[in-house]
Amino acid sequence: MNTFGKNFRVTTFGESHGVALGAIVDGCPAGLPLTVQDIQHDLTRRKPGQSRVSTPRNESDQAEILSGVFEDKTIGTPIAIIVRNKDQKSKDYEEMKNIFRPGHADQTWFNKYKHRDYRGGGRQSGRETLSRVIGGAIAKKLLSHICNTKIIASTVQIGNICAKKFDEKEIEKNIMRCGDPQAAQKMEELVIKTKKEHDSLGGKVEIRIISPPKMCGTPVFGKIEAELAKAMLSIGTTRTFQYGEGIRVASRLGSEQNPIHEGISGGITTGDDIILQVTIKPPPTIAQEQKMNTSNDEQIIYSVKGRHDPVIAPRFVPVAESMAAIVFADALLSPPDRIDQIFRK
Amino acid sequence: MNTFGKNFRVTTFGESHGVALGAIVDGCPAGLPLTVQDIQHDLTRRKPGQSRVSTPRNESDQAEILSGVFEDKTIGTPIAIIVRNKDQKSKDYEEMKNIFRPGHADQTWFNKYKHRDYRGGGRQSGRETLSRVIGGAIAKKLLSHICNTKIIASTVQIGNICAKKFDEKEIEKNIMRCGDPQAAQKMEELVIKTKKEHDSLGGKVEIRIISPPKMCGTPVFGKIEAELAKAMLSIGTTRTFQYGEGIRVASRLGSEQNPIHEGISGGITTGDDIILQVTIKPPPTIAQEQKMNTSNDEQIIYSVKGRHDPVIAPRFVPVAESMAAIVFADALLSPPDRIDQIFRK
Amino acid sequence: MNTFGKNFRVTTFGESHGVALGAIVDGCPAGLPLTVQDIQHDLTRRKPGQSRVSTPRNESDQAEILSGVFEDKTIGTPIAIIVRNKDQKSKDYEEMKNIFRPGHADQTWFNKYKHRDYRGGGRQSGRETLSRVIGGAIAKKLLSHICNTKIIASTVQIGNICAKKFDEKEIEKNIMRCGDPQAAQKMEELVIKTKKEHDSLGGKVEIRIISPPKMCGTPVFGKIEAELAKAMLSIGTTRTFQYGEGIRVASRLGSEQNPIHEGISGGITTGDDIILQVTIKPPPTIAQEQKMNTSNDEQIIYSVKGRHDPVIAPRFVPVAESMAAIVFADALLSPPDRIDQIFRK
Amino acid sequence: MNTFGKNFRVTTFGESHGVALGAIVDGCPAGLPLTVQDIQHDLTRRKPGQSRVSTPRNESDQAEILSGVFEDKTIGTPIAIIVRNKDQKSKDYEEMKNIFRPGHADQTWFNKYKHRDYRGGGRQSGRETLSRVIGGAIAKKLLSHICNTKIIASTVQIGNICAKKFDEKEIEKNIMRCGDPQAAQKMEELVIKTKKEHDSLGGKVEIRIISPPKMCGTPVFGKIEAELAKAMLSIGTTRTFQYGEGIRVASRLGSEQNPIHEGISGGITTGDDIILQVTIKPPPTIAQEQKMNTSNDEQIIYSVKGRHDPVIAPRFVPVAESMAAIVFADALLSPPDRIDQIFRK
Repeated sequence: MNTFGKNFRVTTFGESHGVALGAIVDGCPAGLPLTVQDIQHDLTRRKPGQSRVSTPRNESDQAEILSGVFEDKTIGTPIAIIVRNKDQKSKDYEEMKNIFRPGHADQTWFNKYKHRDYRGGGRQSGRETLSRVIGGAIAKKLLSHICNTKIIASTVQIGNICAKKFDEKEIEKNIMRCGDPQAAQKMEELVIKTKKEHDSLGGKVEIRIISPPKMCGTPVFGKIEAELAKAMLSIGTTRTFQYGEGIRVASRLGSEQNPIHEGISGGITTGDDIILQVTIKPPPTIAQEQKMNTSNDEQIIYSVKGRHDPVIAPRFVPVAESMAAIVFADALLSPPDRIDQIFRK
Repeated sequence: MNTFGKNFRVTTFGESHGVALGAIVDGCPAGLPLTVQDIQHDLTRRKPGQSRVSTPRNESDQAEILSGVFEDKTIGTPIAIIVRNKDQKSKDYEEMKNIFRPGHADQTWFNKYKHRDYRGGGRQSGRETLSRVIGGAIAKKLLSHICNTKIIASTVQIGNICAKKFDEKEIEKNIMRCGDPQAAQKMEELVIKTKKEHDSLGGKVEIRIISPPKMCGTPVFGKIEAELAKAMLSIGTTRTFQYGEGIRVASRLGSEQNPIHEGISGGITTGDDIILQVTIKPPPTIAQEQKMNTSNDEQIIYSVKGRHDPVIAPRFVPVAESMAAIVFADALLSPPDRIDQIFRK
Repeated sequence: MNTFGKNFRVTTFGESHGVALGAIVDGCPAGLPLTVQDIQHDLTRRKPGQSRVSTPRNESDQAEILSGVFEDKTIGTPIAIIVRNKDQKSKDYEEMKNIFRPGHADQTWFNKYKHRDYRGGGRQSGRETLSRVIGGAIAKKLLSHICNTKIIASTVQIGNICAKKFDEKEIEKNIMRCGDPQAAQKMEELVIKTKKEHDSLGGKVEIRIISPPKMCGTPVFGKIEAELAKAMLSIGTTRTFQYGEGIRVASRLGSEQNPIHEGISGGITTGDDIILQVTIKPPPTIAQEQKMNTSNDEQIIYSVKGRHDPVIAPRFVPVAESMAAIVFADALLSPPDRIDQIFRK
Repeated sequence: MNTFGKNFRVTTFGESHGVALGAIVDGCPAGLPLTVQDIQHDLTRRKPGQSRVSTPRNESDQAEILSGVFEDKTIGTPIAIIVRNKDQKSKDYEEMKNIFRPGHADQTWFNKYKHRDYRGGGRQSGRETLSRVIGGAIAKKLLSHICNTKIIASTVQIGNICAKKFDEKEIEKNIMRCGDPQAAQKMEELVIKTKKEHDSLGGKVEIRIISPPKMCGTPVFGKIEAELAKAMLSIGTTRTFQYGEGIRVASRLGSEQNPIHEGISGGITTGDDIILQVTIKPPPTIAQEQKMNTSNDEQIIYSVKGRHDPVIAPRFVPVAESMAAIVFADALLSPPDRIDQIFRK
């Protein structure tokens, strides 16, 4: 299933070392100002090779709009956008054909599909998130244009280093995309050290939805937090999701919890800000010898070649924002709840 | 949106103090043995009034199968099952018509729909989870029949009391539904004490999927963990979701995390057991005075009447199992991944 | 697949000789006036035993609303409505267990599901259309309430007798439901004669959508005529669908066709009236000996017992209206096309 | 809605005079042999400029596969294929900006979306069917590979000239794509004459599904004929749909109709061949003066410039085949009907 959303539908495609990746956004209403720059901004925040804490794969990730936009505004038809792969070094991966890398989805994909594109993980690769960012950029534009909603993600933990404060203006000033510059400095040092030790680091990312549209989310299965949880867990590396007070509610009394505003009530947005948090695992590709299984059911000791990220949180930030934006764009466009909201009358 | 699932589709309906609640399961294949007892077992585990830690509302919650089953086996047509409400005390709620209870969804439902059934929360009420249990009971039967999969949830935390061990056989022996009998004892004492203080308690529930079917979950948006996260967060009281190593991966190194098996890889099940955990907030209805808003934008001090649960975890257990079961039944029935799996050829 | 529609979703269930049939309507906005009488009116127009041209099966087909309506108005939650079977004479069908009736779906259902409810055709029976009428009655109420749309079907051909004129007021005055009273008279005589000869008759039904909502239908696959065609062909007995000028366009010149208004352009409604026509086959159950296959791959000569309709058009009329109404209700509630139509801003 | 299908999902995009058109096929199982030639064959049958009865617009319509295929076989991931526009003469259309062409969807699109790409009709243009042919070519390959199913469409009527016989081998030998060479000759003469008179012609196309997969179609709303009707009516020019005995059943007796095999029973395929027929209207663009409305609510007399088809049936043939193929591919891949068909057990 490569489509996300019911009303604002994002269909994605593309393999890490194939010809191109992209996304089709269907359901975006007509009249929204949109140019390739709107897309490119977040693609560039996500692209590889942007700093010394990301993979050196050198991709410019230039977007091309194929349809759905006319004279810099959407026309209500599907918006197709592609990015061609440039720096595929497929040879790096030739010898990986029959080896299942630990922590990657090589084995389950092999079991499920048998015939697979093993080059750089094919579609299992985190490179597929490029398409999510395309969809997310359009969703953000819609949310910003219609209701001034902003979606701001940032790194709040790397290894054992946690952000102690949140200053939105600091996020894009450091390569960790952390709202606490002191913590960011320590995180960066830890990443560089870990990279030298041929290892990688997990972390946490927080997503703030500022001024979300009201009355989004539909009971009982379409609760906005359910859609957000699905969106976040659909990103390969995520292990946990929480919103609002999160894990703290386990040890709360009802009389303590009741007065707290969490931005969502009964699955429906109140219009107040919403805070999400996700935990992401360390990138599995590390430049050290590991035990691996092969398609011949053997176990070998092997060190994977290729270009990798020692930490994924900074590049995960625009992806998390994108998925949150897609959920809210989808909810914003949902059918009427009351008969006085029907506009075709 | 009151339907969950793509292939095994559960559509639910019903208000807390209406005529009846129920579920339609569409997509369940023909030939599955099924009787009303299969449904009743879990309905009874979920029903109110079952112990001194649950609401005294007295409902027998008797299921009636209206369609889809013939001679005790499914026939491939929609399975409709209803439960009539018996012990509605609507009068308890008459004066709540214009009062928005804190921690409940009264205000957002009012904003969204204007005209609402305010009696006992109407469809916002946790009573809607009865329908999930109907769907879940059928899903469990399918999973058990086809691949011996078992889904076992239990309470692992209430307030600050955590289970220290897990013994499956203990769960149904204590009214907390906890796999650690010593912890269960302490939890129960805390609940009784808190109830006397007119307050309520949050907690955590763990869901174990034993021998799940292999190759379930579809990249990239239909990852099994994404569907599970959606399922769990769609239950009104949930604040967090995690699977596998969960929050621990934040401070892990890649070399530590890579060899660990979590039952899911790349969004696809390996066939190994899977462990989920969710955090649930304290039930918001408490028998003490609280500040409340009214539909006239006034703020009043008020104490809600009616019958309530001081803790929801023990009754949440069968609901969590049900939602997990529905996700796996849906995945089990998904279309073929490879051309050799097409059975209409 | 027992759900129809994306925004206004009708899920149906029930077997001919089971406990009950019914429908769940999900997505109907809150605030619509609705009582059981709104449903009962069309159920009674569809019910068996209403005239000497319909089956003598004696069902009162009384609807019961289980949820979704409070104080005679919808509340935005699923509307569940059931009708219990009363006059099942299952014994009539016992010997049909292993016989596949010609013109019925017995054999394909057996091949597909193996285990089936053979009593009166089970869910293959035209009795399933009762659920469509429930959904359609709610859809009609919505269309009428919001935009004064009326949907009027009538019989226009039985055997070789065709209606020569259309007077809406005449339709419910004759048991053929034909807008031409002279033709209705001849049709009725033909039906009585054919019934005596133990045979049955096909026909044509026309559906007029008067003042449909504007701008309904979504390019390219959700064209309103595509949804209507699906809706009509989903009724078991239908063989053809046409709209507007229909078959006449085959021999038209562009210069002749261009100025004609058909109510739909580019898959989108103009607001002008729309005329559909469908052809329906003769009911397959006839009280004479026919060749039949058995589940043992034998061929026998057999005469089916039970109670049957010599012609289906008059009872098809409310079913066709219902399916058209559901399509338009669904389209009416579709998400916004332009950013100025977004109401959650 | 630009996606068709539930299991085999074809998402299309592109405007007539935009950068490119294309399709994403999601859900095609892994292991199907597929090359660009498989796509190109039908694209070339559909492309403009192929004969003197089609528009002179000169497009090579070269397909490029962007993803989903590795070493000439599908890998279970979305197959993205694009075709770049080459011969857009946008200037031809500049003056059409505020003019609504009769018989085209200009006015309803303007009403619905306000901001539209008016060049060559934008996405209303029949050029969107190019994307359907991409999806259809993959569907045909799947059907042929798995169950030897062939889908053969042909022109059976143009104006008043009807094919009298059907010889499959003749179809591609004449530019009318008619199975009766004598009729084809007369059709061609009529088209040339009509073109000289600056007019256009309607017609009928027949689609034969040879050896369809068995047990396709799902009661009650997913009947195979319902999906086929939707598919055919979703093509802009179609006015009628019929299958099997079609319109003839109106005047049949039950005893006559019952023994006839139509390839579908109860919405489910029997495995026997199926014959569909659709009526298509004359292409609305004709090189003569016509009354037209403008966006200023004026009426003018105007003659449209640009390049057009005097008859669309020959180019409609591969489009009709494609839509039928997509329906059957989708049905072929539907979830299991019986528990013994579950392959993940």
